[in-house]
Amino acid sequence: MENYDIVIVGAGPVGLVLSTCLGRWGYKIKHVDMRPEPTLTGRADGIQPRSLDFLRNMGLKRAIMAHEPAKVYEVAFWDPSKNGIHRTGTWASCPKFIDARYPFTTLLHQGLIERVFLEDMEKNGVKVQRPWRITAFKNDGKDSTYPIEVSIKHVNGEETETMRTKYLFSGEGARSFIREQLGVKIHHKDPIAHVWGVMDGVVRTNFPDIKMKCTIHSDAGSIMVIPREANMVRLYIQIASSTDKDWNPRKTATEAEVQATAKKILKPYYIEWDRVEWFSVYPIGQGIAERYTLDERVFMGGDCCHTHSPKAGQGMNTAFLDAQNLAWKIHHVEAGFADRSILKTYESERKLIAENLLNFDAKYAKLFSQRLPSAGEVGSASQTSQPIEENEFVKVFKESCEFTSGYGVAYNANIYNWSPSHPAQHPLFLSHTKYETTQRPGRILTPATVTRVVDANIVHLEQEIPVNGSFRLYVFCGDFRVTKKALEDFSSQLTAPRSFYSAFARADKESVSFHERHNPHTHFFTLALTFAAARRADVTDITEQLPETLKRYRDHVYADDVWEPRLPSDTKAAAHRKMGLSEDRGGIVVVRPDGYVGCVVKLVEGPGTVEALNQYFGTFVSKGLGGEEARL
Amino acid sequence: MENYDIVIVGAGPVGLVLSTCLGRWGYKIKHVDMRPEPTLTGRADGIQPRSLDFLRNMGLKRAIMAHEPAKVYEVAFWDPSKNGIHRTGTWASCPKFIDARYPFTTLLHQGLIERVFLEDMEKNGVKVQRPWRITAFKNDGKDSTYPIEVSIKHVNGEETETMRTKYLFSGEGARSFIREQLGVKIHHKDPIAHVWGVMDGVVRTNFPDIKMKCTIHSDAGSIMVIPREANMVRLYIQIASSTDKDWNPRKTATEAEVQATAKKILKPYYIEWDRVEWFSVYPIGQGIAERYTLDERVFMGGDCCHTHSPKAGQGMNTAFLDAQNLAWKIHHVEAGFADRSILKTYESERKLIAENLLNFDAKYAKLFSQRLPSAGEVGSASQTSQPIEENEFVKVFKESCEFTSGYGVAYNANIYNWSPSHPAQHPLFLSHTKYETTQRPGRILTPATVTRVVDANIVHLEQEIPVNGSFRLYVFCGDFRVTKKALEDFSSQLTAPRSFYSAFARADKESVSFHERHNPHTHFFTLALTFAAARRADVTDITEQLPETLKRYRDHVYADDVWEPRLPSDTKAAAHRKMGLSEDRGGIVVVRPDGYVGCVVKLVEGPGTVEALNQYFGTFVSKGLGGEEARL
Repeated sequence: MENYDIVIVGAGPVGLVLSTCLGRWGYKIKHVDMRPEPTLTGRADGIQPRSLDFLRNMGLKRAIMAHEPAKVYEVAFWDPSKNGIHRTGTWASCPKFIDARYPFTTLLHQGLIERVFLEDMEKNGVKVQRPWRITAFKNDGKDSTYPIEVSIKHVNGEETETMRTKYLFSGEGARSFIREQLGVKIHHKDPIAHVWGVMDGVVRTNFPDIKMKCTIHSDAGSIMVIPREANMVRLYIQIASSTDKDWNPRKTATEAEVQATAKKILKPYYIEWDRVEWFSVYPIGQGIAERYTLDERVFMGGDCCHTHSPKAGQGMNTAFLDAQNLAWKIHHVEAGFADRSILKTYESERKLIAENLLNFDAKYAKLFSQRLPSAGEVGSASQTSQPIEENEFVKVFKESCEFTSGYGVAYNANIYNWSPSHPAQHPLFLSHTKYETTQRPGRILTPATVTRVVDANIVHLEQEIPVNGSFRLYVFCGDFRVTKKALEDFSSQLTAPRSFYSAFARADKESVSFHERHNPHTHFFTLALTFAAARRADVTDITEQLPETLKRYRDHVYADDVWEPRLPSDTKAAAHRKMGLSEDRGGIVVVRPDGYVGCVVKLVEGPGTVEALNQYFGTFVSKGLGGEEARL
Repeated sequence: MENYDIVIVGAGPVGLVLSTCLGRWGYKIKHVDMRPEPTLTGRADGIQPRSLDFLRNMGLKRAIMAHEPAKVYEVAFWDPSKNGIHRTGTWASCPKFIDARYPFTTLLHQGLIERVFLEDMEKNGVKVQRPWRITAFKNDGKDSTYPIEVSIKHVNGEETETMRTKYLFSGEGARSFIREQLGVKIHHKDPIAHVWGVMDGVVRTNFPDIKMKCTIHSDAGSIMVIPREANMVRLYIQIASSTDKDWNPRKTATEAEVQATAKKILKPYYIEWDRVEWFSVYPIGQGIAERYTLDERVFMGGDCCHTHSPKAGQGMNTAFLDAQNLAWKIHHVEAGFADRSILKTYESERKLIAENLLNFDAKYAKLFSQRLPSAGEVGSASQTSQPIEENEFVKVFKESCEFTSGYGVAYNANIYNWSPSHPAQHPLFLSHTKYETTQRPGRILTPATVTRVVDANIVHLEQEIPVNGSFRLYVFCGDFRVTKKALEDFSSQLTAPRSFYSAFARADKESVSFHERHNPHTHFFTLALTFAAARRADVTDITEQLPETLKRYRDHVYADDVWEPRLPSDTKAAAHRKMGLSEDRGGIVVVRPDGYVGCVVKLVEGPGTVEALNQYFGTFVSKGLGGEEARL
């Protein structure tokens, strides 16, 4: 009987991201899918701005963009008028008050997205076994290393396989065998269910917003328009709702009926079909799984755990982040870095996001029917640390934009996401709620553009460290004349025997390649040093004066000298300013392997900075750090 | 005996670009190369900022960037010091006063660049026949359609082929059989010749600028450092010069000798090689072919026509533009659009550029040894229409940056590049020399960022029309309240029977796809309409009011509403302002199929605008335009 690190069931977005990450990190994977081949047509297609950050951080954005997807910068709203419909307003997909690298939604057929992951997996020797399905599993603990037995079977044949594994993951979608076997219930947040018709095709029309995302309300019904790659368009039509008098969840419609309805709704504009690529009618309700795992061995994610309306285009994006969240946590446990208990944070973090998504989904419908706020009401772009009074309506509007763009994800305080009630109570932690930094634990790191010193390239700081399973220590070094001693102390404390950094040193530390950029000393931490100075005059010389440990990160030294139009004109160092850190004294932003902020600490002379970090990491790593008292 | 549209000899950059363009436009191509396979190591590697524009316009930039090339933003200068060498300054590859989309040089192994073209050619059924070489050709005119007979032979075998062709092109490189057969002489501009050693490899070093482009002068000799993809670096070492007392053009050096020299030059820094990928020693002098063609049937381009030092990284970039220049001109003649006489402009335009390149190459060496100008001397970024007094030194500095970035290409006045002495003398032409526009005929169109109205995408206007053999009519429409009538008149004159636009209408005009963006009416013109207004409020409604002919370009309607930091704060419409056109009255910039400005005309009510354009196009197209008098 063969042993695996993980058995993954289902090769949709959630399963593929998990497989891609763990495959890159060298785990032995059995990945099966019931379908004979990847998605051919239809299904999900919207990649949110935040997901593009994620795909780029995985090194896969260029492969996605090579398919020339459609990009949605704005949403248009159409309402009934005397002669049919008229445009009542437009709304940015990702308004300027959100500091996003890619302020648009990218639309591409799910099959093409799947293929990008499949090709990457194959580079690491992971292939999806098709068409196979899971027939049985149990966590019988007969083998303490591989506690789960899993059986799979060829969909059309008699072949079967049985194996043992450390983990089992269900990315099976809404109808999950694993979830049923576990007896995990689906909880319905909003009792309203809908039947949707969805049609992808190439159309001829004089409707002026056919290349925009539109929500159209007319006397003949409602429709949602979503542009696609290759001149295609997707139309969503609500066919029935549980609020209808004659509600029938089995109500259906033919392709011709949906086309006829679309023609009526779009009047006075014409619409004709050159071809229909995909057509489907499906009932969908809101649902959320009550648990994502029972034993931290068998996990679930994606549509298996949460279903909702397609209106906000969130399904695939949430699936991406479910998988990424789980991937690095499994990695940290299996690599001996973290306590097994940290696996509990997968459910607590991701279930909250799904709940927020479902709440949002209900609120979103309501918002559509209200007036839009004016530019003045929404306020200016920059994330300031000033508290701003906002009325409820504007707050909902902003939250909606944040949510649909993917930037609304905010994990609650826990061992990873520092707060004043975190077990690590060192006085050097900086708190967002006290306006000591703009960086909020549990939220994504704010993007910042800087100059890489070694080659003078203008780069995106938040993308400089890839998804590689490492914590990212963004050291904002302020003014080197002020922080020289603090950096020397930081460096010498890092190399102290029981520091978080030394405790997890690479075994092959002495033979690491000269060209290793990210993990010269340890697989679990990468440092990036940003100085509040101009590259040309100053930072090239500063690099030479750095202590050896920091100098080893020569490819991760940056000059904070790029002008940022979002900031006031007295800004000297835009990245420092964006982080809410002193342009003189700097500070350290600890970012989790998935790009979310963990904590922010002061950069001071003496041992304090590393002491604070020892306390923070000491709450979840597998070894005692610092003095005995640091193990909380 | 088989007939071809063109026989192309040599599959280096110049031959590949020509083959790619003509293959896309449906020509029948025989392409042969002596080498058994594409370049494996070494050779050219620098892609200049302007060439990235070109590659993007060809739709090939993403494929180049997928190889993760190195990017050079700055050049560092090192000079002898007491203990070895020290940095004396740095210099932007493409300083801010050049309005470039990609202000960096991209370094990638020539073989990877060749493969990008080869893959694109295969999509159009063009394959390079290897290893074959040309053995004979003559323009005997025995067949008036296919006047040239060409014989080729397998390099290692007895197989031969003979064919007839309309055109023959030599992209054979410096040692050209075709050039020799034609008896075309090489003229040597600078009598100084050099022997260069070049080495690509992976090194370990503490030299801090190893990822920068550097020119290093030391007491032990001189070296040029160029970073490459995949942690590689290229070193150029001048081994001998014809100015040396003991000059020997056959002087050579071993790999070990070059490494030993590099070690001496780089002191006090160390350098060690992990591996050497390529090493070569070659003599090179400056040379330029006296003719590029004798009969406008047999053409030459690339290294076959011009050789020079590798210092400024210009070879491949000049080759790209040689080929592009020839491709659309052959296409226009063979498609029946242009007089055969226009083929003379290939030599007159491209030979001038090669001469400038050789002059620059000589001047560049001199400049290196002088002090660098200060930022204040170089002046601010924007291209204004104000004449600015500059001292000679700053002028040379600017020209050098323009030249190395590829933006220094400026074709002289001719039938394509309007000037006050052009045969078209209509009073509506706008002249750069009179500061009526910033757009200079013979120079690249200034880049501008605008909002595409149909889908609200933020786009690069200069990239919106691909290399497709069409002239690009950028109509800057100003304020629609002012120009409504002018646009209506322009549209109705376009459709008049003998207009430049109607005279070359597509034969299949009635059955053109609804989704054809670029050539709905004619294969030789594409229109793009930019309004000085905000998309949201205004231009979506303006589109509905356009005359039918213009409305057909619905995918090429833009709102000039994107803020541009290079321009003064009173700017309302940045693209109009950059073109030096009125934000109220607009104007039309005619851009050649290769992206260079042809002429600029006023947009006025009445027939004048199209009359002026009829005059301009009437000087080179194959049909009489407008009234009889318009055929000049």
